[in-house]
Amino acid sequence: MSNIADNDTMTKLVALCKRRGIIFQSSEMYGGINGFWDYGPSGVPLRRAVEQLWWRYMVEERDNVEGLDSTIICHPEVWRASGHLAQFSDSMTDCLECKKRYRVDQLENPGVCPNCGSTKMTEPREFNLMMKTFVGPVFDEEHAAWLRAETCQPIFVDFNTVRIATRQKLPFGIAQTGKAFRNEINPRFFTFRSREFMQMEMEFFCRDEDSMQWFDYWHKERWNFYTKVLGIPENKLRIHWHDKLAHYAKAALDIEFEFPFGWGEIEGVHHRGTWDMSRHCEFSKQEKDCKYYDQDTKDSFFPTVVETSCGLDRICLMLLCNGYDEDKADTQKEGMDEDVRVVLRLPAKVAPVQIAVLPLSKKLDESASALFRNLRKQYRANYDDSGSIGKRYRRQDEIGTPFCVTVDFDTANDQAVTVRDRDTMTQERIAIAALPAYLQSKIYPDA
Amino acid sequence: MSNIADNDTMTKLVALCKRRGIIFQSSEMYGGINGFWDYGPSGVPLRRAVEQLWWRYMVEERDNVEGLDSTIICHPEVWRASGHLAQFSDSMTDCLECKKRYRVDQLENPGVCPNCGSTKMTEPREFNLMMKTFVGPVFDEEHAAWLRAETCQPIFVDFNTVRIATRQKLPFGIAQTGKAFRNEINPRFFTFRSREFMQMEMEFFCRDEDSMQWFDYWHKERWNFYTKVLGIPENKLRIHWHDKLAHYAKAALDIEFEFPFGWGEIEGVHHRGTWDMSRHCEFSKQEKDCKYYDQDTKDSFFPTVVETSCGLDRICLMLLCNGYDEDKADTQKEGMDEDVRVVLRLPAKVAPVQIAVLPLSKKLDESASALFRNLRKQYRANYDDSGSIGKRYRRQDEIGTPFCVTVDFDTANDQAVTVRDRDTMTQERIAIAALPAYLQSKIYPDA
Repeated sequence: MSNIADNDTMTKLVALCKRRGIIFQSSEMYGGINGFWDYGPSGVPLRRAVEQLWWRYMVEERDNVEGLDSTIICHPEVWRASGHLAQFSDSMTDCLECKKRYRVDQLENPGVCPNCGSTKMTEPREFNLMMKTFVGPVFDEEHAAWLRAETCQPIFVDFNTVRIATRQKLPFGIAQTGKAFRNEINPRFFTFRSREFMQMEMEFFCRDEDSMQWFDYWHKERWNFYTKVLGIPENKLRIHWHDKLAHYAKAALDIEFEFPFGWGEIEGVHHRGTWDMSRHCEFSKQEKDCKYYDQDTKDSFFPTVVETSCGLDRICLMLLCNGYDEDKADTQKEGMDEDVRVVLRLPAKVAPVQIAVLPLSKKLDESASALFRNLRKQYRANYDDSGSIGKRYRRQDEIGTPFCVTVDFDTANDQAVTVRDRDTMTQERIAIAALPAYLQSKIYPDA
Repeated sequence: MSNIADNDTMTKLVALCKRRGIIFQSSEMYGGINGFWDYGPSGVPLRRAVEQLWWRYMVEERDNVEGLDSTIICHPEVWRASGHLAQFSDSMTDCLECKKRYRVDQLENPGVCPNCGSTKMTEPREFNLMMKTFVGPVFDEEHAAWLRAETCQPIFVDFNTVRIATRQKLPFGIAQTGKAFRNEINPRFFTFRSREFMQMEMEFFCRDEDSMQWFDYWHKERWNFYTKVLGIPENKLRIHWHDKLAHYAKAALDIEFEFPFGWGEIEGVHHRGTWDMSRHCEFSKQEKDCKYYDQDTKDSFFPTVVETSCGLDRICLMLLCNGYDEDKADTQKEGMDEDVRVVLRLPAKVAPVQIAVLPLSKKLDESASALFRNLRKQYRANYDDSGSIGKRYRRQDEIGTPFCVTVDFDTANDQAVTVRDRDTMTQERIAIAALPAYLQSKIYPDA
């Protein structure tokens, strides 16, 4: 087994993702729209599975984290309070000759157009990354609203409503997953930098004197999620501690993954101090919604916040990059002429298809489809009776199916099937009666 | 038991939903934003559970329906082809005196302002319901884009990519769930008419000659979803057949539920003919992406589409309205003084909390929390050791918890607990060893 990571990997992965219906550009029929990606039949189950693992790990298994699902559009004042309206911007410059526009921080030689070489570039100007819309019947500034640039702000706004409804006391967290939008100037690296993406964020509210302990706790929990829950090798992850901190923050770090295009952020763990709650207090004038009143000590104060924030699409891209492999082993034994097989080594618990049922002949359809219907109750299962068995294995390899169950002419006699392992390509004869326990232990080993 | 449905029901339900963290207005701290609703800790599990039931019923359990998750923003040309840019509008009129704006079809006396009585009303003007935004660095018409007004259009656009990747042949469907946006002039009836909402749609592609058979099939399947899967009583549902059909359609119907404010649409089953595929062909000029080529008969044609379309938020509202009850039975036997209890009779499989574990005394915390941790692996469980047992039952009733498991001082001796039923208020002594099977049969009776 070899994990390749040459320059072509992204090109090959993007092509595979389209061909097998995992991820492809939005609106391709109309020439596409830059920075927007659709998930197809083999991408949706992967993304849903990762989201559910996060939700289970961060919300359902904890007594001190509550779930939320706020709207994408909220009151525009929220973004004034958060500072996004004033500061969430990139510095841009235009070429006066060819009219191309660039982010200043991405130019190797600012002042020289990388397209036409002209030195007639405008002075840098700030360009806000939030997407604007209008709510109500008039399209003027009074009715302007914004698509949320991050999912965390509505958590701060709903803090007190959630606290009262759940009778939680500090410390506790509120988490949500959902879409966020950023009008990126240069979307790039496949889904890594998109204009529409899924965030998964948790804001943990605590007393300031406990906040660094909680920062350490959540740092370790999030590392654990990637290494233990998702099985990413530790040597492909690293921590990047911020050395420039916001004035209100005591600490901040990113968890980065080594993508084929370089190290990239997949998660941020941030100490946000009392910044957000005090800003919302200042702008909304609703002090009781922004402060926490401790019934035991009788003091009232802004809670300090520790945030964990990650991008679901980036996590899926990490899993795809980490799993993409070309196996040069002799595959002729499976009846194929090609000497390279493409395989996605995805963890079984997030694979789009967990078990493929393959009858060796159409004559075996009846018993094979009975087995398939049974397995489908518990797992994401697929049934394929078309083409040679070798071709069917290759198709399943390409979408990362960890187990292929072959029903053959001996099955009626020995009540057993052959289970073929995606990674080792070994085949094992398993009694049908023993199959559920066998697959359960392989697919959900920690359950 | 009595299912009340008086005029106050909606007022009471809205108050309950806020108080118990089920659903509340977005950005309340800033005075709210009309037509946008957030789901809180007890609303998110309900909505997630309903969405997952739909996804399982419509996609995972079927071989001939594929899943998709497209972006909210797609190429603007999609909405020109679909007809939304030209026609998705309401007729509006303004009062020249008080400056209020109205939908013409909602005025009892068009030409007379219902606010100030003035007859100085403008001529009706068309107002497009799609929400506009801008993608890219310039906010001009060339960069205008739209938040999708329905989730189905990207399904048509991705039809051929999905077909190739999955090797499906007609007839087959493509389904997706996700956010849609409509700039409604008068959002109303709680979440029933919102500006941001979740749709769940399936487009079924078939030959025209088979399309009415498929229409009948999906009509029955969707009725079955509401009555069998969600347990809505048949007498609170009805079918409304459209008598005015679009020129391309052979049939159309709505499934309606009797809300406290009247009958309201929760689902549409629509024959869409070849309209969408032929329009996208006309606008994209990509004939091979819009037509289906039959390899056996060698003919190429636009597939006919049968659509099922529903609103997830409306389904949740239906469940809340159907479940809301005030029980006037003598509740003093549970130690409460009030003679009316508020109870949400939600199906156990979608209840935010399925099982509450209640130790009768804090001294029983150890064994009770062990039981709780065990049950939480399989169910949405909650632990509550605060206040009298009667108060704890009431709190669980209000969020629809079907089963309360009480651990008492006999538990250590008889290895049994008391299970209290939300609807009958009966209490049953169940051995801890028998509890998993007991709860499984009650919560998931069809599994």
